[in-house]
Amino acid sequence: MKDNLPLRIGLAGYGYWGPNLVRNFRSLDDCCVTHICDVDVTRLSQAARRHPGIRATHHFEDLTKDPDLDAIIISVPTALHYELGMQSLLAGKHTFIEKPLADAVDKGEDLVATAHELSLTLMVGHTFVYSAPVRRTREIIRSGEIGDVIYINAQRLNLGLLQPDINVVWDLAPHDISILLYLLQETPSSVGCQGKVHYLKGIEDVAGLWLHFPSGAFAMIQTSWLDPCKTRLINIVGSRKMIRYDDTEPLEKIKVYDKCVERGPYYTDPGQFQLAYHYGDMYAPWFDQPEPLKVECQHFLECIRTGAPSISGGTQALQVLRVLEAASISLRDGGKQVPITGGAKPALSQA
Amino acid sequence: MKDNLPLRIGLAGYGYWGPNLVRNFRSLDDCCVTHICDVDVTRLSQAARRHPGIRATHHFEDLTKDPDLDAIIISVPTALHYELGMQSLLAGKHTFIEKPLADAVDKGEDLVATAHELSLTLMVGHTFVYSAPVRRTREIIRSGEIGDVIYINAQRLNLGLLQPDINVVWDLAPHDISILLYLLQETPSSVGCQGKVHYLKGIEDVAGLWLHFPSGAFAMIQTSWLDPCKTRLINIVGSRKMIRYDDTEPLEKIKVYDKCVERGPYYTDPGQFQLAYHYGDMYAPWFDQPEPLKVECQHFLECIRTGAPSISGGTQALQVLRVLEAASISLRDGGKQVPITGGAKPALSQA
Amino acid sequence: MKDNLPLRIGLAGYGYWGPNLVRNFRSLDDCCVTHICDVDVTRLSQAARRHPGIRATHHFEDLTKDPDLDAIIISVPTALHYELGMQSLLAGKHTFIEKPLADAVDKGEDLVATAHELSLTLMVGHTFVYSAPVRRTREIIRSGEIGDVIYINAQRLNLGLLQPDINVVWDLAPHDISILLYLLQETPSSVGCQGKVHYLKGIEDVAGLWLHFPSGAFAMIQTSWLDPCKTRLINIVGSRKMIRYDDTEPLEKIKVYDKCVERGPYYTDPGQFQLAYHYGDMYAPWFDQPEPLKVECQHFLECIRTGAPSISGGTQALQVLRVLEAASISLRDGGKQVPITGGAKPALSQA
Amino acid sequence: MKDNLPLRIGLAGYGYWGPNLVRNFRSLDDCCVTHICDVDVTRLSQAARRHPGIRATHHFEDLTKDPDLDAIIISVPTALHYELGMQSLLAGKHTFIEKPLADAVDKGEDLVATAHELSLTLMVGHTFVYSAPVRRTREIIRSGEIGDVIYINAQRLNLGLLQPDINVVWDLAPHDISILLYLLQETPSSVGCQGKVHYLKGIEDVAGLWLHFPSGAFAMIQTSWLDPCKTRLINIVGSRKMIRYDDTEPLEKIKVYDKCVERGPYYTDPGQFQLAYHYGDMYAPWFDQPEPLKVECQHFLECIRTGAPSISGGTQALQVLRVLEAASISLRDGGKQVPITGGAKPALSQA
Repeated sequence: MKDNLPLRIGLAGYGYWGPNLVRNFRSLDDCCVTHICDVDVTRLSQAARRHPGIRATHHFEDLTKDPDLDAIIISVPTALHYELGMQSLLAGKHTFIEKPLADAVDKGEDLVATAHELSLTLMVGHTFVYSAPVRRTREIIRSGEIGDVIYINAQRLNLGLLQPDINVVWDLAPHDISILLYLLQETPSSVGCQGKVHYLKGIEDVAGLWLHFPSGAFAMIQTSWLDPCKTRLINIVGSRKMIRYDDTEPLEKIKVYDKCVERGPYYTDPGQFQLAYHYGDMYAPWFDQPEPLKVECQHFLECIRTGAPSISGGTQALQVLRVLEAASISLRDGGKQVPITGGAKPALSQA
Repeated sequence: MKDNLPLRIGLAGYGYWGPNLVRNFRSLDDCCVTHICDVDVTRLSQAARRHPGIRATHHFEDLTKDPDLDAIIISVPTALHYELGMQSLLAGKHTFIEKPLADAVDKGEDLVATAHELSLTLMVGHTFVYSAPVRRTREIIRSGEIGDVIYINAQRLNLGLLQPDINVVWDLAPHDISILLYLLQETPSSVGCQGKVHYLKGIEDVAGLWLHFPSGAFAMIQTSWLDPCKTRLINIVGSRKMIRYDDTEPLEKIKVYDKCVERGPYYTDPGQFQLAYHYGDMYAPWFDQPEPLKVECQHFLECIRTGAPSISGGTQALQVLRVLEAASISLRDGGKQVPITGGAKPALSQA
Repeated sequence: MKDNLPLRIGLAGYGYWGPNLVRNFRSLDDCCVTHICDVDVTRLSQAARRHPGIRATHHFEDLTKDPDLDAIIISVPTALHYELGMQSLLAGKHTFIEKPLADAVDKGEDLVATAHELSLTLMVGHTFVYSAPVRRTREIIRSGEIGDVIYINAQRLNLGLLQPDINVVWDLAPHDISILLYLLQETPSSVGCQGKVHYLKGIEDVAGLWLHFPSGAFAMIQTSWLDPCKTRLINIVGSRKMIRYDDTEPLEKIKVYDKCVERGPYYTDPGQFQLAYHYGDMYAPWFDQPEPLKVECQHFLECIRTGAPSISGGTQALQVLRVLEAASISLRDGGKQVPITGGAKPALSQA
Repeated sequence: MKDNLPLRIGLAGYGYWGPNLVRNFRSLDDCCVTHICDVDVTRLSQAARRHPGIRATHHFEDLTKDPDLDAIIISVPTALHYELGMQSLLAGKHTFIEKPLADAVDKGEDLVATAHELSLTLMVGHTFVYSAPVRRTREIIRSGEIGDVIYINAQRLNLGLLQPDINVVWDLAPHDISILLYLLQETPSSVGCQGKVHYLKGIEDVAGLWLHFPSGAFAMIQTSWLDPCKTRLINIVGSRKMIRYDDTEPLEKIKVYDKCVERGPYYTDPGQFQLAYHYGDMYAPWFDQPEPLKVECQHFLECIRTGAPSISGGTQALQVLRVLEAASISLRDGGKQVPITGGAKPALSQA
């Protein structure tokens, strides 16, 4: 990489999300998107029309083999993440893969190991960890203001966009899992999952997950492609205060409630607490809201330039993948708790 | 019972809910509340002050042994439901028990059998089946307007009122379970449950349930004593339309969305459907909202006078109990699905 | 009055609001409601049935002539306030009159002067000045937190309860006017009013008022009997912060926004300011919400016992009346500003 | 104009709104934006950078004198609308002027007459008449579903964007006035206005308008640059139903309430009606929501090609101007009603 030159970037997969990635990378000063690759003729010609001068190609190797390309963005169906990601890394390109990192933990481990070996930046599109309300929520939690996090209740519901290849857990839960790992700075020790198929054979369209964390925190996540109203809600119950993060609110996305259960004095019988409830003011912090995807794209460029680890790098993405895989096992096994192994504490805390 | 005289009623348990029962029965023309029984001196003297002329007593047998008393209302901790309920029935009194019917299925079966043998009305305080929005929702479902019910998502959350003797499942879920059984006219074939204890040893304060119904419908219920915002929400997804019932709304409690997933033509590969989404108008039906508890009290008097089965009679309450007991087993067993047996189709459909 | 005996109270007018007054006075320890007077046979017999032992009468003089009666509550149509209020005062009774004090300023002045002369408590039912959110709003304003109040925008809208004898201004605006006078501690110097008649000849059913205050504050009030949605909103714009008081919210009735226009440095041309906008956190203060009518009734008893002036006494109620009368003149005169005279600063600030 | 060639367009004024106009015209197939003119060096160089190949100029006559230019878009401060608009028309260019048409009625009349004489399209940027919810509301009204429109209550409030040259009436009210004229198909017969200056000398920052229409309808409009919460609300009360149009709602912008006052049988005394209230269902119609500005731009091109009158042409814009000018007179004159003359029925009904 040439230090003072703009980074040259190629994109693979100009479908639903790809155009957003191109638009955001294009809005940044120190990079240029030079290649777009897609197998679909219509999409590719659309890309060519919109971006005169770009190199539009059906062949992924036109990207990997171009010695001037610094990085490759992979925005294709999940099943292809591993194959294209590995080709990209082996060609020596910094690599950005849309979430989830891969469709299996072992493949994800392989990608992470390869990136590490070749000293390349590997980053995954867990966009929410770049959004202002999630970052502000994390600051509030880390400041100790709400006490210990004891319970989180997350919901991601709407009608639409059923996927033919992955179920609602793999489609929607990566958002909430990545947010929870980022907020709590720990990986769950076990996960359970229940779901139901209504429309596409073998593809759950509604599902619930529950996660036990080593700290004692407990989380429930609901995901659904079948719901009358768009819901993007995460309630965080602390031992001293509670946070409601409603991403569908245009302005007051975060509300902090000065509410909690107060334990009274300890009694002889260890199970006998005297309980009371504390009620106080609510506040909604003000903060600027830059577009999360733009922050994410900028962060990718910075990581490449500085070699610093990404806050949604391979390590973090692999933890998300471990939760997803364990959830899948639980889903097939009647909802029992499945332990999550191999997960070191994610490096998110270094951010 | 003397046909043209007001029914004479005694109440046991003048705690949190008891006064509401007294107030509502007192507002009805064809009955009079003549006895109030409580073990607590303060509460009993309060009852006496508020209701001059009432017989206030610490002894339950003052109620059972009074030959002029027609019916007994039992509003005491769940653990005592069976004992007092059985004494009441054996004394030949029509009996109203607060929800849940008992703390175990076998005790509930015993109560139901006894009431049946003695031809007495046994009714349980599942108040929501007497509320206008629940009744209207049932009418809409039964009319076929929303197609088949495929998925229900219920939430009952708030901060407060942790119970020392029963967990959040036994405290809050009876509401949603009784509503679901009333709406769907069927008992689930299996239930799973996950929860977590944060405050009182052995008493879960947050929990999730998922229920599979013989018709293929799937339901999730979330209950929590730890949440910043009061939530009383039931979303019902039909194959043609969807209903959102938000009990915290003052007026527009029910919204019917003309939204659904549309299957396209059938393909060779059985898993390959062509999906599309239909979006149309939303409407909120207007209806009067009498106080559900008053409707419930009236219904109890009617059942006594006519001998007709209650829509929240022992049979229905027993089904709720079977779900609760199975959920408890699942909760202790890591969340696995627990089959529900012995449940005939509830007689709710006769209403 | 006998110091250690409960005050004896009679009520005139057992229509829409009277029963609420009786219920609240009855819930207080140190008074007893002994008489109820109404011209309507049905209402009177209803009162007699509900309150066994009460003296129910068609003759107001049964109240004024009873030497044991300490106070009279007048809850009759506005046109009769003056006549009954004057009879009550001249009979030596402390007097509570529903809002507005009278239907003309000169009559109000007469009542106030008479009460003053006879050293009797005269109080008017401006209930909102006894409500927790209004009191909390006033505290926030008086603390200086929001800077100077520069603009208030109030709305009181709903479908229903058109009055046959008074227009929407006299029916609904007394609430907002009394609140504004209480919050700002000043009487407007002028008022304008526009309205329209749609249903009852000569009775405006929608109207707007605008009020200029000596401090420079400006207020708009909208009142309507014709609106699809119930609205009870008062926005208060200060030079440093803004308050939104939404009385239809169940819990978070008050929100304080840290938002304002910031003036930049002063320029040569006095009209040239450099403007910027400040945005900060919002908070919703927590406070208990006792029933305002109960607080009001208690306050009336205290004023009688201590002789202290009421915060909604004759003086304050007269200021409200002056605004209403001036608004009526403006309404008949095409909406022009009408000065308000004779108004000393209300004694509300002494509370 | 050459029939089968794209129309060539130049824009004057690349400030706050100009870039949106360029973006939308550029997204259309049958036109190209060839010139951008601005007096500001920074803005002009920004335009040049964003649109390589465009002719960026400081001189408006570079647009008027270019024989290949078909139309000119004028998006400059209101005070300059007349001068630039007239130059554009006299140069034979179809002309689009941002709202309001001009800063005085006589100038507006001059522009309209000139466009008519030269057979040129003159259109004004009253964007709301191109928005889906406004159009749907108009369809509902015209269908007769809500009966006669008797009252409209509009609010357009927010903190921010105080203008140094025009007051809040001229800045915000054109939106509501153009919507009302479009919905009701009539011009008010008189208008009153009250307002207050808080920040910029001589520039009202809050104001209320009330409008009497020949049909008997009455409307209130509130505009404010000083309000804690963004409000874009228009309530329309019909004799049979009511509509609530809340433009801040993302999806359910229109709600139709089956609510009204019902007149009872006629009595001898003509003022004595028996009133009742009707309450029924509410519904929110579903409709697509294309970007209104894009629809507006398309409409401008169509009007040029076909010669058809615009639904926000000079005639309609002139009516808006007449209301604004009369409101200004009322504002200076204490709020009295000011008649609106010279206003023929707007041609909007031809759309």
